[in-house]
Amino acid sequence: MSPDAHIVSTGTALPGEPVDNEAIARRFGTDVASAEAFIGTRQRHFAVDLNTGQVTHTLTDLGAQACAQAMARADLEPRDVDFLVLGTSSPDALVPATVNLIADRLGIDQVSTYQLQSGCAGALQALDLACRLLDEEHLIGLVVGADVCVKHLVLDRNTNSVGRTGHVLFGAGDGAGAAVLASELVPGSIAVRRVLNRFSELSRTPGQVVRWFGAADLAHPEQPVEQDHKAIAQRVPLLARQAMREVLGMTGWYQASVSYLLPPQLPGRVPQHVANELGLADVTEISCVADVGNAGNALPFLQLDLLRDRILAKERAVAIAIEPSKWIKAAVTLEGM
Amino acid sequence: MSPDAHIVSTGTALPGEPVDNEAIARRFGTDVASAEAFIGTRQRHFAVDLNTGQVTHTLTDLGAQACAQAMARADLEPRDVDFLVLGTSSPDALVPATVNLIADRLGIDQVSTYQLQSGCAGALQALDLACRLLDEEHLIGLVVGADVCVKHLVLDRNTNSVGRTGHVLFGAGDGAGAAVLASELVPGSIAVRRVLNRFSELSRTPGQVVRWFGAADLAHPEQPVEQDHKAIAQRVPLLARQAMREVLGMTGWYQASVSYLLPPQLPGRVPQHVANELGLADVTEISCVADVGNAGNALPFLQLDLLRDRILAKERAVAIAIEPSKWIKAAVTLEGM
Repeated sequence: MSPDAHIVSTGTALPGEPVDNEAIARRFGTDVASAEAFIGTRQRHFAVDLNTGQVTHTLTDLGAQACAQAMARADLEPRDVDFLVLGTSSPDALVPATVNLIADRLGIDQVSTYQLQSGCAGALQALDLACRLLDEEHLIGLVVGADVCVKHLVLDRNTNSVGRTGHVLFGAGDGAGAAVLASELVPGSIAVRRVLNRFSELSRTPGQVVRWFGAADLAHPEQPVEQDHKAIAQRVPLLARQAMREVLGMTGWYQASVSYLLPPQLPGRVPQHVANELGLADVTEISCVADVGNAGNALPFLQLDLLRDRILAKERAVAIAIEPSKWIKAAVTLEGM
Repeated sequence: MSPDAHIVSTGTALPGEPVDNEAIARRFGTDVASAEAFIGTRQRHFAVDLNTGQVTHTLTDLGAQACAQAMARADLEPRDVDFLVLGTSSPDALVPATVNLIADRLGIDQVSTYQLQSGCAGALQALDLACRLLDEEHLIGLVVGADVCVKHLVLDRNTNSVGRTGHVLFGAGDGAGAAVLASELVPGSIAVRRVLNRFSELSRTPGQVVRWFGAADLAHPEQPVEQDHKAIAQRVPLLARQAMREVLGMTGWYQASVSYLLPPQLPGRVPQHVANELGLADVTEISCVADVGNAGNALPFLQLDLLRDRILAKERAVAIAIEPSKWIKAAVTLEGM
């Protein structure tokens, strides 16, 4: 990777008012208590009106909003940005790539744009790619993770599907997070030390499959989302430990020198299992899954936004993302400047 | 970008037997003569059986087949591959990313994988990214472009849709192409000199939009594919000229030193307009759109596969791809080793 990459600023975008568990339970007739025990999320934001099914925010809307905030915080004009990277699992359309609609919205022209199709590990893959793009010609880049998963779910009142949709909605959340990345060392920025991004678990069946049938299609014979919760609960903590060990090894850091952990933000008991597996007693966890749900590619950037307010110069942090679809372990080491 | 990148081998995969214009005309009752004048493609391959609507090849199938051929030609084992990049507009599912299913099929584990969501410029974007990934830890990479656009089209016998589907099918084609990229200079390889990859035409309405409703959905109110043929015919030649000029400038080459041109492979009269705009009398065009249709992300790799058989040491080539969805100009300069 490029020798130096610094996170100069961050930006976030969460659609509308937070939706709490009671609101979802009322809408879908699901039992709140059993769902809460399962999900570990208090509230989340949706890019769709749960009552009307109307899409309120596109991926372009949220991505552009998060980028605009990150740019404003770093005092950047569109012409200052040398490239744009988006990680998402839920583009607005197959073509054009949503990253180009975001660039257009921001007024950024004549730059390289990349859109990674990715699940939970996508934000760190995008960060990985952005770090590699920094060179003598590309001094400042925007990297954004965003998902509007809910847009593609079936919002029906059919009793056969209520439980399924309700459960998925309890775990999911929509949003975007962005970061301005620069090769120059800016005081108060967060240095990206190393990025691990590794396809794993050869031959293992996917733990999650998300198909796309566009807008709600009640007649479609296939389920849009399948998850193997048991496999996810089993494998994610193990892969998180592997990712932690590997990225610390790549960076040459002892675990004891790390002050902050940005853990995988899967809903349910997975974060607790991860914490147990990692056994990090003296580390401060930076977590937001309880407030935003599983916001996919946005989540690590939302965590980074929280980290920015806390990390001091020379303090160290590790962010880990595990993708349970086709298994990917990703991690990044960060240091306050 | 990384200082040195060499295309050591290429591989291709085209599904089933070629389908000629007469076969499409028979199937959809379209007039062959008027369609041929419009498309400039004699035949193409489809990952779907036009008569039954049955999908015969997934993107994973084609991508893995093209990669396997490229690996065999370079005498590589799965463990030799350090990363995998896929460019596509038509993934098998949103999650997991198809690139990981391809890695799994090839037996490649514990490497970085990237899937770019991209239209016509995607192959060169993927090549761009792959070049940037080569470093002291990543010596050999696989880069693959693939599309199975037809899979998502509505194959109905409804008279209202016949003309639309027939026309799209006349222009489209499915396939995959792959290249083994290495930092080491291998005699007989093709050196990648510079890659241009630039979002363009700020604020211009997309020339192409591809929505995805999964398998055939006759009831869906929106058209899956929209194209502004006039905008494409007007802008693509101009952007091709810009791309040519810019990539030659980046590389420090005179146009007269270039022996081969791999032009944008859009169907219809666009290639002829591009040739006129570029005015390259002494350059040999490497083209395959007449035989494979608009195979999207696969096309530049299919052209590269043809170039590999012709280019001699020190001969120079330029490949250009223009994406008319949200306008992107991409180009690469290549030199025989």
